Amino acid sequence: MVPRYSRPAMTAIWEPEAKYRIWFEIEAHATEKLGELGVVPESAAKALWDWWKTDPKIDVEAIDAIEAVTKHDVIAFLTWVAENVGEQARFMHQGMTSSDVLDTTLAVQLARSADLLIEDLDQLLTALQRRAEEHKYTPTIGRSHGIHAEPVTFGLKLAQAHAEFARCRKRLVAAREEIATCAISGAVGTFANIDPAVEEHVAERLGLQPETISTQVIPRDRHAMFFAVLGVIASSIERLAIEVRHLQRTEVLEAEEYFSPGQKGSSAMPHKRNPILTENLTGLARVVRGAAVPAMENVALWHERDISHSSVERFIGPDACITLDFALARLTSVVDKLLVYPERMQKNLDRMGGLVHSQRVLLALTQAGVSREDAYRLVQRNAMKVWESDGALSLLELLKADPEVNAALSDAELEERFDLEYHFRQVDRIFERVFG
Amino acid sequence: MVPRYSRPAMTAIWEPEAKYRIWFEIEAHATEKLGELGVVPESAAKALWDWWKTDPKIDVEAIDAIEAVTKHDVIAFLTWVAENVGEQARFMHQGMTSSDVLDTTLAVQLARSADLLIEDLDQLLTALQRRAEEHKYTPTIGRSHGIHAEPVTFGLKLAQAHAEFARCRKRLVAAREEIATCAISGAVGTFANIDPAVEEHVAERLGLQPETISTQVIPRDRHAMFFAVLGVIASSIERLAIEVRHLQRTEVLEAEEYFSPGQKGSSAMPHKRNPILTENLTGLARVVRGAAVPAMENVALWHERDISHSSVERFIGPDACITLDFALARLTSVVDKLLVYPERMQKNLDRMGGLVHSQRVLLALTQAGVSREDAYRLVQRNAMKVWESDGALSLLELLKADPEVNAALSDAELEERFDLEYHFRQVDRIFERVFG
Amino acid sequence: MVPRYSRPAMTAIWEPEAKYRIWFEIEAHATEKLGELGVVPESAAKALWDWWKTDPKIDVEAIDAIEAVTKHDVIAFLTWVAENVGEQARFMHQGMTSSDVLDTTLAVQLARSADLLIEDLDQLLTALQRRAEEHKYTPTIGRSHGIHAEPVTFGLKLAQAHAEFARCRKRLVAAREEIATCAISGAVGTFANIDPAVEEHVAERLGLQPETISTQVIPRDRHAMFFAVLGVIASSIERLAIEVRHLQRTEVLEAEEYFSPGQKGSSAMPHKRNPILTENLTGLARVVRGAAVPAMENVALWHERDISHSSVERFIGPDACITLDFALARLTSVVDKLLVYPERMQKNLDRMGGLVHSQRVLLALTQAGVSREDAYRLVQRNAMKVWESDGALSLLELLKADPEVNAALSDAELEERFDLEYHFRQVDRIFERVFG
Amino acid sequence: MVPRYSRPAMTAIWEPEAKYRIWFEIEAHATEKLGELGVVPESAAKALWDWWKTDPKIDVEAIDAIEAVTKHDVIAFLTWVAENVGEQARFMHQGMTSSDVLDTTLAVQLARSADLLIEDLDQLLTALQRRAEEHKYTPTIGRSHGIHAEPVTFGLKLAQAHAEFARCRKRLVAAREEIATCAISGAVGTFANIDPAVEEHVAERLGLQPETISTQVIPRDRHAMFFAVLGVIASSIERLAIEVRHLQRTEVLEAEEYFSPGQKGSSAMPHKRNPILTENLTGLARVVRGAAVPAMENVALWHERDISHSSVERFIGPDACITLDFALARLTSVVDKLLVYPERMQKNLDRMGGLVHSQRVLLALTQAGVSREDAYRLVQRNAMKVWESDGALSLLELLKADPEVNAALSDAELEERFDLEYHFRQVDRIFERVFG
Repeated sequence: MVPRYSRPAMTAIWEPEAKYRIWFEIEAHATEKLGELGVVPESAAKALWDWWKTDPKIDVEAIDAIEAVTKHDVIAFLTWVAENVGEQARFMHQGMTSSDVLDTTLAVQLARSADLLIEDLDQLLTALQRRAEEHKYTPTIGRSHGIHAEPVTFGLKLAQAHAEFARCRKRLVAAREEIATCAISGAVGTFANIDPAVEEHVAERLGLQPETISTQVIPRDRHAMFFAVLGVIASSIERLAIEVRHLQRTEVLEAEEYFSPGQKGSSAMPHKRNPILTENLTGLARVVRGAAVPAMENVALWHERDISHSSVERFIGPDACITLDFALARLTSVVDKLLVYPERMQKNLDRMGGLVHSQRVLLALTQAGVSREDAYRLVQRNAMKVWESDGALSLLELLKADPEVNAALSDAELEERFDLEYHFRQVDRIFERVFG
Repeated sequence: MVPRYSRPAMTAIWEPEAKYRIWFEIEAHATEKLGELGVVPESAAKALWDWWKTDPKIDVEAIDAIEAVTKHDVIAFLTWVAENVGEQARFMHQGMTSSDVLDTTLAVQLARSADLLIEDLDQLLTALQRRAEEHKYTPTIGRSHGIHAEPVTFGLKLAQAHAEFARCRKRLVAAREEIATCAISGAVGTFANIDPAVEEHVAERLGLQPETISTQVIPRDRHAMFFAVLGVIASSIERLAIEVRHLQRTEVLEAEEYFSPGQKGSSAMPHKRNPILTENLTGLARVVRGAAVPAMENVALWHERDISHSSVERFIGPDACITLDFALARLTSVVDKLLVYPERMQKNLDRMGGLVHSQRVLLALTQAGVSREDAYRLVQRNAMKVWESDGALSLLELLKADPEVNAALSDAELEERFDLEYHFRQVDRIFERVFG
Repeated sequence: MVPRYSRPAMTAIWEPEAKYRIWFEIEAHATEKLGELGVVPESAAKALWDWWKTDPKIDVEAIDAIEAVTKHDVIAFLTWVAENVGEQARFMHQGMTSSDVLDTTLAVQLARSADLLIEDLDQLLTALQRRAEEHKYTPTIGRSHGIHAEPVTFGLKLAQAHAEFARCRKRLVAAREEIATCAISGAVGTFANIDPAVEEHVAERLGLQPETISTQVIPRDRHAMFFAVLGVIASSIERLAIEVRHLQRTEVLEAEEYFSPGQKGSSAMPHKRNPILTENLTGLARVVRGAAVPAMENVALWHERDISHSSVERFIGPDACITLDFALARLTSVVDKLLVYPERMQKNLDRMGGLVHSQRVLLALTQAGVSREDAYRLVQRNAMKVWESDGALSLLELLKADPEVNAALSDAELEERFDLEYHFRQVDRIFERVFG
Repeated sequence: MVPRYSRPAMTAIWEPEAKYRIWFEIEAHATEKLGELGVVPESAAKALWDWWKTDPKIDVEAIDAIEAVTKHDVIAFLTWVAENVGEQARFMHQGMTSSDVLDTTLAVQLARSADLLIEDLDQLLTALQRRAEEHKYTPTIGRSHGIHAEPVTFGLKLAQAHAEFARCRKRLVAAREEIATCAISGAVGTFANIDPAVEEHVAERLGLQPETISTQVIPRDRHAMFFAVLGVIASSIERLAIEVRHLQRTEVLEAEEYFSPGQKGSSAMPHKRNPILTENLTGLARVVRGAAVPAMENVALWHERDISHSSVERFIGPDACITLDFALARLTSVVDKLLVYPERMQKNLDRMGGLVHSQRVLLALTQAGVSREDAYRLVQRNAMKVWESDGALSLLELLKADPEVNAALSDAELEERFDLEYHFRQVDRIFERVFG
């Protein structure tokens, strides 16, 4: 976790206090059910909850000190609780194993993180929709291969991003469901020393599903899927970030990240206004994506479990969630405040001398009976002249002056093919598909 | 694609002929609808389908020769079709762009591949269930950290794998749905020169969904998700493969890959019987997983598209699908024919002098009023003696002889804690969760 | 391996015939030394070499047929050789293990591949140097964050690429050295049944170093390093490819990939000239880079070896080498034939109204006694006006008209700061560093 | 960075104070040279160093507060220094750009980190050599595919690891050299406003090489190579860690991680002694390896630079270095204190009824004139009986009783092939290769 790329609500989920709180709740809920089942005295859970109601401070340092001796984190925690609660605490953890606590806790943390990330996505989707509708009919050039292709609207660009992040949201909801399971099944998952009813009880209290079948641990294919989904979301962030970076480059300058008064773009060059937020998002995307492969390598634990996954998760759990949360919020802010320059968009649209209409002419020629091969040749030979003039020549004028073209299409017919509005006839239909 | 790791049905999907057949169908279906809409003559589609009914051989070499000149694959193909169909062919591809064809084709190929992979998973699930039920109550030692923990059954191991691959199946079904979209939206996705009805028609005929919003291409977050899911499935294959490799190692030898008569394990050591199939699966898992990151890097195409994704997909499309298909089939075969040695399992279970029952004694001591700390110390001091004797000593006998233990638990009470069947009381309940 | 991204010389290294030829040579050289040592009759090696001198056709199908029975590739090959050479062949492979042959063969293949790749790099370096010198003093705008910064020359851009690929070459030479080792050490690397002199002899004949210590295999950290280096080279290819893609985009258009007569940029838009070669290189870079992690995962083989690395290497060995060879050659061709437009570079340089000189004014102000803070503010407030005018206003004129600026710097002093040549005074020194 | 996986010396390199100290030194050294060159007053550097000699506390919070306004870290730092040093500070940073400071600082941090990592490797190599020599002739079974192959010594296993980490050291030394460069070349690397002599001066003072050619930044292929090397080292750590985990598993138990008094292996099962350190190392290897791909993705910065690499490096810079440092130290400790059980090794060696000698019998038969095919068949048919008896039968006895075998080899000749010492004749020679 890098503090400058973190936000408090998400970070709090991953702090030791939060972890220990969940540990306690799992143990207390389990003890409660064990009491009901008559395995331990009902007084045990009561003692635990009574203490809990006093809102005790979690003494992380004290727990660390115990762990330094026992070299076992859960035992250290149980010892510390026992020191506080007294005698009744010895009934905690009956028939459970450390992983029951650790894995269920991770499930709670990941589920809570997913909830924040889903909120982040919702805010991003809101911003995208607002700006998309604002620019639904703002003409801009569509580009393939970085080369001018045909007209689109700026709203369409944002609608595409909306559809993409709506898919990301759906994937995250599914990944959250996958990850939100509870395992209280004992040392090798047989429930030998603990009734499955305990697992069901704890699961229900924590808003989780009981794990179908655990070994000692919750199977790591669930987590691999979760981090892979975060990696895909990060890749979609990268896509939109790179779009903004392209639009802001000097020669294009169709849009800009908001630049606050007093901000300095460069210590050496006072004229600079750099797309540093989206460049930053490009880098953060690489970081989040970097969690996917280690998470997949975590799946093949040995036999009923080995603990190799644990250290990986101590890194990627907080890092991927916190960084993605930050990145989504930053992207939302970029979208919300993006400076959009429709005049510049129009200027860029016009700069190629009408080349962007070449396809329509091609189609018109073939519909007028010219073979596709010939039509392509006719349009290309005029288009290349415009291309080489860097837009100084006009494609329309050249076509009018080309006798072979003119034999098939009149001046009026040619002019009709250079109508910008023609390209936007389906925008409404596309918006309906995206926004319903 | 490495021939030795491929199977014919999956390979066929990725061969040039299959690709060109799909190209033709897309063009013909589109021309059909364009005819209905009055954009082109209805005779055009008829001419195309009439030719198609003659079951023409796809002349890959001829198409390649044309591409060598045009440097454009779709134009080369259209030219070749026109050479065969004649005049009417010039109405093909009206208002479409190459990506309309290429991306929709990839969608068909990936969807068909997913169908085969789902079948593969079904066969694997069948094999796992059959063997799980066969060994539902075959006792074996559960291991955490590679160290004996507590008893499980061999059926439980396989049931766990079943649950894991059932999740994989569900993910793959979702990923298939994501990938199965059709885009016929023109050069920058505006439908400027082609009615959305064409896209809807082609989609319906090919069993796809119309893409919500395309640019020039179908957005690559869909593909990234698809390959990420393949990577997760590969990781689950690796897990089961490594389990078999562990079980077959000389000192464990609880199960073995089937070893056919005439097979040679080693050119130098005639005594060898090596788990080469599952070692191979471990490697293939790395290969399939290797597609996930490049697929994610493909998401951030520039503006309305760049073509950097294409070369990546020429590798990972066939490689990941073909290799995973092969790996799933190989794993199914390993599971189906696995030699299982229950006697050896029992022998291994017994080899630690009863240490596997240590937890039950611990619980009994705490229930008899000994503090958890003391109980742990009492059991551990006896367990360590057994551990150091390499199982020559008996934990039960040592406990009986330990006065502090005996003060809390009688011999009979201790003996009761060494009952193997005790551990399997919930097996039926777990099987119900997994198999319903 | 994807045929369209391969070249014959590299592909030949990875074909079955090439592999079997190396196998034979290893076996024959080893038998030769074994003969000298008196372990086998000297006639054995003679018989092998006599047959070899007849330039026998390698019958790949026959060998495959034998392997289908034995399920062991080396035994199959030895059997086939024995069928051809007769009785004397039984002395082959004495005390060796399959991996002795397979791993040494892979070393030869990788070393030969590295040799080709080093040649590729040499050709790329030659092309880069030629074009760099051609454009040593061609002014162009330097960009940070995609935003105009200060002037550079186009030659400097290419000199940077030269320095980068010169580093890549050095890394590859080191990686080649790492990989070029020979192991003939028997089943577990103890030389129990074969004298180390055999290894030394075979190594010397094949131009390899004897492996310091092998187990059954050559340790895979060597291969991991090799593929990681290929991944870094691929990343440098991506960098230069992306530079070209940027330069070719419509609004920039300072350089272009060569566009051959008859080429079609788009099936739909006859005006397009797309940077498809460098987009393709961007994708191929992802593919080559994709080999690095699987190669690293191959390092941790179990004990003295497991065979999981083998299937991975069947993919990434040929794929990474063949693809990188193709990519380097393609990049060389792009550089060699790149269309460079100095006039357009100058036009872009000029388009920001002189903003690119802002730093020099800043420095002049501080040297004239203005505090850095004030100087920055003074330049920025004028620069922002130019920025917002999209280059219509002139920074020089605004500064002249700014009383606070003019109080510190006269018109003449300001004008001096807008001299383009000033920026290129060190170009010669930099070229000396790069080209010597 | 995860505190539990970090050590203080390495962590200190990456703390803000350390970073700011390097920043200051770069600025002060540069100002010094600028003074010599007459660009700024010589008094400026003097003022800076005079203040520095007072050992001022770096006020990280104050700098952060300034950055919150300027949104530019270097400007914030310069402002803070100016507040402390006064008037003379305005001559700092003349003609430099932020990246000159940031990139050179990163070079210093990485070089210092590399120095610590090289020390770590040296300590690991020392431990490996000590234990290798201790167990130079301790017999143990060599395993391929997890299956008993032929005898090796435990010292050979450790010697292999030594050779592998010696290669890692060599790679790291090369990677350190690559990374240790200094760039003080201005906004786009042209030295337009700063003499190359400044770069040379700062480089010399900080123990770096001047960067051959920078743009605005030091090219990121250097960093990619560095992190790739860390990834390879991590993979070698994983290999040795997995070896220990295998040796400690219950059925093998030939070695064990040191288990301290008072340590608890499992909260539930008092008998457990788990290889948690090496399992942890397996996970940490995944983490360090996870930095390689993002570092490679950082190479292709846009034009003269974009800042996407920066956020990535804020994560992977400290994380990969700190984690690898911790992992190497942990591995050294594991090796140093490893409990080795030669008796158990011998017991395992013997458990297969002499199968490990099968190759020697095979060779003896062929040398006695039996064809290789027949010899293989004869040995295999007896070996399979022993295999199926789980080592209860003796291969030597079965061979003696096999008339076809006995026809070729007498009892005495057979017995000679079952000599363990035979396998260790070359150990000394191998040790010489490894340890010189």
